[in-house]
Amino acid sequence: MAIRVPKGFSMAGVHARVKRDPQKPDLSLVMSDRPAAAAGVYTRNLVFAAPVALDSSRTPSDRIRVVVINSGNANACTGERGLRDAKEMARLAAVACGAEGHQALVLSTGIIGEFMPMDKIEQGICAAAVKLGSSEACLLSAARGMLTTDTVHKLAGRTVEIGGREIQITGMAKGAAMMGPNMATMLALVMTDAPLDPESAQAALSRATENTFNCMSVDGHMSTNDTVLLLANGAAGGDPLEGADYDAFYRAFEEVCVDLAKSIPADGEGATHLVQLDLSGCASREAALQIARTVANSALVKTAIAGADPNWGRIVSAAGYAGVPFDPTKVTLHVNGFLLYENGTPMPFDGKAVSQSIRENRDTHVELQFGEGDVRLRFWTTDLTAEYVRLNADYHT
Amino acid sequence: MAIRVPKGFSMAGVHARVKRDPQKPDLSLVMSDRPAAAAGVYTRNLVFAAPVALDSSRTPSDRIRVVVINSGNANACTGERGLRDAKEMARLAAVACGAEGHQALVLSTGIIGEFMPMDKIEQGICAAAVKLGSSEACLLSAARGMLTTDTVHKLAGRTVEIGGREIQITGMAKGAAMMGPNMATMLALVMTDAPLDPESAQAALSRATENTFNCMSVDGHMSTNDTVLLLANGAAGGDPLEGADYDAFYRAFEEVCVDLAKSIPADGEGATHLVQLDLSGCASREAALQIARTVANSALVKTAIAGADPNWGRIVSAAGYAGVPFDPTKVTLHVNGFLLYENGTPMPFDGKAVSQSIRENRDTHVELQFGEGDVRLRFWTTDLTAEYVRLNADYHT
Repeated sequence: MAIRVPKGFSMAGVHARVKRDPQKPDLSLVMSDRPAAAAGVYTRNLVFAAPVALDSSRTPSDRIRVVVINSGNANACTGERGLRDAKEMARLAAVACGAEGHQALVLSTGIIGEFMPMDKIEQGICAAAVKLGSSEACLLSAARGMLTTDTVHKLAGRTVEIGGREIQITGMAKGAAMMGPNMATMLALVMTDAPLDPESAQAALSRATENTFNCMSVDGHMSTNDTVLLLANGAAGGDPLEGADYDAFYRAFEEVCVDLAKSIPADGEGATHLVQLDLSGCASREAALQIARTVANSALVKTAIAGADPNWGRIVSAAGYAGVPFDPTKVTLHVNGFLLYENGTPMPFDGKAVSQSIRENRDTHVELQFGEGDVRLRFWTTDLTAEYVRLNADYHT
Repeated sequence: MAIRVPKGFSMAGVHARVKRDPQKPDLSLVMSDRPAAAAGVYTRNLVFAAPVALDSSRTPSDRIRVVVINSGNANACTGERGLRDAKEMARLAAVACGAEGHQALVLSTGIIGEFMPMDKIEQGICAAAVKLGSSEACLLSAARGMLTTDTVHKLAGRTVEIGGREIQITGMAKGAAMMGPNMATMLALVMTDAPLDPESAQAALSRATENTFNCMSVDGHMSTNDTVLLLANGAAGGDPLEGADYDAFYRAFEEVCVDLAKSIPADGEGATHLVQLDLSGCASREAALQIARTVANSALVKTAIAGADPNWGRIVSAAGYAGVPFDPTKVTLHVNGFLLYENGTPMPFDGKAVSQSIRENRDTHVELQFGEGDVRLRFWTTDLTAEYVRLNADYHT
């Protein structure tokens, strides 16, 4: 089913020659026909890129009109000049869309430590501006313009009726996949025609990011450029959403974020499994997240799943070194519905059947139950294959 | 140069049929002819094995005579019966050496979740007891009996003169390498004929472990069985070491621990590089350790080194997400002596030369300088290769 563009938004993706391959769009422009509430969540890496510095100074906002996105160059570790370039990209994009310089945000991903090729960026912005549209083809081209080594574009959408208005929420993302000889970045942009004030937009984005993009990892490496943006332009009409209307919006918005977040490890480099971890019985959300991250980032857990190995020992012992206190005799583990470990004791199980279930399904479901409280958490990750290593160890001078 | 056995110690390794391959010793016995001061440092994993429970209840001690070591079965996740088995192993080993049951410690490594084959263990202990000796061959066979997928045995030793006495310090270790379809364990046993009281032995071991075994990782997965033991039997004569004599002992002892700790990632599964991280200018030891672990466990850093890729971006950005505050504009990075990044800015460098230097040397030297203080830390790790993934994903039902 086609994903629609929210009312008042138009977009385009073009090849601006930042990337070598002319088949690959590398510059996208997203425009709202009116000022939109804008919210952002950014990498917590101390080494952050120029676009992160720029956007975080401009959000939350009630007047963003334009987002310019490029792939092929991350504009990271580029100092003062990098920040000037990011500002200039924003200004050029705003001008091309008939907006003011400060009404634009920038997303960049790609190689780090190199200056942005501003002449190519300027030409790309002009080329994209004349192609802006709200067709599915325009949405697809914009989604493709933000990709690096992703094998597929990543789009998600929901249409919901709230208080008699039809609200569209549409998001695009790129995955944590390697770029050139350099680094991984997760970018996402969600657009909606819902009316939101900037504070509500920021609250919704911060909360949804905690539950989705921050509950996902490919290799645990946090990028210099990770950014999630929400633009809400209110073109659906009416007053800013509040109360039950806001809650209804939030539920649909979080679903879009779940779809986007899952699509990233699903397309992880070399991945052969999307792994969903469901933790329950945890003492707190922080404890659950710490355990989930430790299990998800364990190379031994990831290689076991790649090898269809129902290796409860690796999973349980990874939880055990997460640095979170729990009673090991109250831990129970299921993999793909098979009980492997109950209340701290390995259980007899049909190893061949579990292995076959892992091998024959793209999705692996790991359920870890603790006896510490009633907090639940869902987390997504990939397995680890020799292909991942090959992709990331392959250095061309 | 041969490594000598400290005075008063004898040992042997035999094949007890815990492992299938009759060429591989899987049970070792180490005996002191007199009660020895004994100290232990153990895994902090909440899911810990029976031998860890037993040994940690028996150290520090002033009366240990025997250590029995087996590979092939970790006696982990085996509940009450596992603890009884570990105690019985200790008792059998003690009896075979003419000691009392509580004078023995146990080290186990191998498959988890299976009960110890006690009949084989008993026969192995008897077979080893009659072969006890202090020749180099005996030392080698004992060192081999603790190995799992290690490709080489790991021995280190120092002879030092302290206060007119010749002191021998000799250690053996096994690496964090996978076992059967299960898990990784690091074990080390250091013996010395130096006279030490139990508190001094424990202090020396705790301090040296912090600086050596805890500054090393292969894949960051903490095992259920990790244990380092020190036995000091005083056979060199004299009163327990104090003051300058103790300091002299400690220096040599830490050197032995450094040698053993480095030997583990040097023989890491599938590893093609031993990576030494030298951090300087850190605000605290905790901060330095946190950064070092984050860099060392980054799959992107590890694959870059496997691919001889001088990828400063991955190293600097891994430091950036370690969760430790620092000023990114004061970070400087050298790899194998080449300056890649200075005060937060990528520097021009000869990529082919750096890549060649990584490719042609087994050791990779990564130096990260910060501007936060004067704390230094050295850390060792491996690269990450497709062979590691193959070894750990290869599941045989």
